[in-house]
Amino acid sequence: MEPTGVSTPIGTDRLILRGVATTMKLKAWCPRNALSKMWRTTLKQAQVILQLPDWLRALNEQQTDPFEDVPARMDFVIDLARKNIERGTGGPFGAAIFASDTGELLAPGVNLVEPAHCSIAHAEMVAIALAQQTLGVFDLSANGRTCELVTSTEPCAMCLGAVPWSGVHRVVCGARGEDACAIGFDEGAKPTDWIGALGERGIEVTRDVRRDQARTVLQQYHTSGGLIYNAERIDTHRSDAASE
Amino acid sequence: MEPTGVSTPIGTDRLILRGVATTMKLKAWCPRNALSKMWRTTLKQAQVILQLPDWLRALNEQQTDPFEDVPARMDFVIDLARKNIERGTGGPFGAAIFASDTGELLAPGVNLVEPAHCSIAHAEMVAIALAQQTLGVFDLSANGRTCELVTSTEPCAMCLGAVPWSGVHRVVCGARGEDACAIGFDEGAKPTDWIGALGERGIEVTRDVRRDQARTVLQQYHTSGGLIYNAERIDTHRSDAASE
Repeated sequence: MEPTGVSTPIGTDRLILRGVATTMKLKAWCPRNALSKMWRTTLKQAQVILQLPDWLRALNEQQTDPFEDVPARMDFVIDLARKNIERGTGGPFGAAIFASDTGELLAPGVNLVEPAHCSIAHAEMVAIALAQQTLGVFDLSANGRTCELVTSTEPCAMCLGAVPWSGVHRVVCGARGEDACAIGFDEGAKPTDWIGALGERGIEVTRDVRRDQARTVLQQYHTSGGLIYNAERIDTHRSDAASE
Repeated sequence: MEPTGVSTPIGTDRLILRGVATTMKLKAWCPRNALSKMWRTTLKQAQVILQLPDWLRALNEQQTDPFEDVPARMDFVIDLARKNIERGTGGPFGAAIFASDTGELLAPGVNLVEPAHCSIAHAEMVAIALAQQTLGVFDLSANGRTCELVTSTEPCAMCLGAVPWSGVHRVVCGARGEDACAIGFDEGAKPTDWIGALGERGIEVTRDVRRDQARTVLQQYHTSGGLIYNAERIDTHRSDAASE
């Protein structure tokens, strides 16, 4: 699937990205250092930008009413996953950070790996980082706040590792990791008892909320020929990852 | 340690962050929805920005000569970690992505958790994301490129989980995870044989390069009273994390 209407990071650094590609090609046939230092160095970026697609930016701004209960929050993030593939703005994953007590949406996230050119831009990571920068804290539990990460599919090894640092007190999951593996995604080397490991840190995990609906979005992505990242390595290691 | 000269993300969304804090306070005593939807929603952010500190931006632009060998690359990232604490722009961790064959610096990274208000902004994550966005690829192994992540301290569980998705072929580490734990940092739930797990994916790990020098920077941070993130949870779980 070729993404259409992709929202990419913007900014002055971004505008010269094509220049980087040109430089790489020039360097292939120019003697080393033949390009002036001045010209080469101006192409270096100094910031990472993960920008929500336009449709999600609009949705986020319109969404002011709180979500009463966990199923409603899950319906919202599954809808983000579905919209993300239907609009061609990334992989079939949605997530969000909610205030646990009020149900207020603090930040949404979708998988932006392809459009943002960034392997760490999983839905959970985007939601966590956006919530923290919106609130101006690196720990979502600061000031006695109680937040939860709601994700359309269980977190991969990276996102799982990010959970304790984020300050959330609960993780709510739709599809299971094995549902993502079933369509070719790699979950990475997660501890066997990852739920117990989070529990020891005081972080509760709730699984299988609207699992069927969440799995349907994964299958929809698969059926439509959506890109499975790092496919070469996945083909080699999928069964290992699934059994870890 | 209070950071001084901290470089924070910028942009129009960033400029209204103080407004968010004000809104949160107002919401504490205003009836729900008393604030107009229009006003509240304009405060929502739509992008995550991780910006290098000014000193690192300048250093990155000046650094055009390649790094001949692995110790030279490690010296560079340890120096980043040291400068990051001396200038008060984040935690005691540095990392970078190099082209393995030429030694070209593709992107540097330092820990930006505090100044960027972002728990995922570990040095390795910043370096990986910056290299990918600079090159315009979500997989650093695209186009047959061979890249390595050089990090002043072994990756935590999150950064370890990010390594296979990044496309790097090698990880070079200075200080060990236990050296970070020794000053109070939490490494998270890493698989016992994390080096073997990366090896199965074709990713080589080289440890203990300039370990003493890297550990010295960690101790320098500790001695100067640097903030240990999520200290409350760390005190509870440090020994578990170290033994995992």
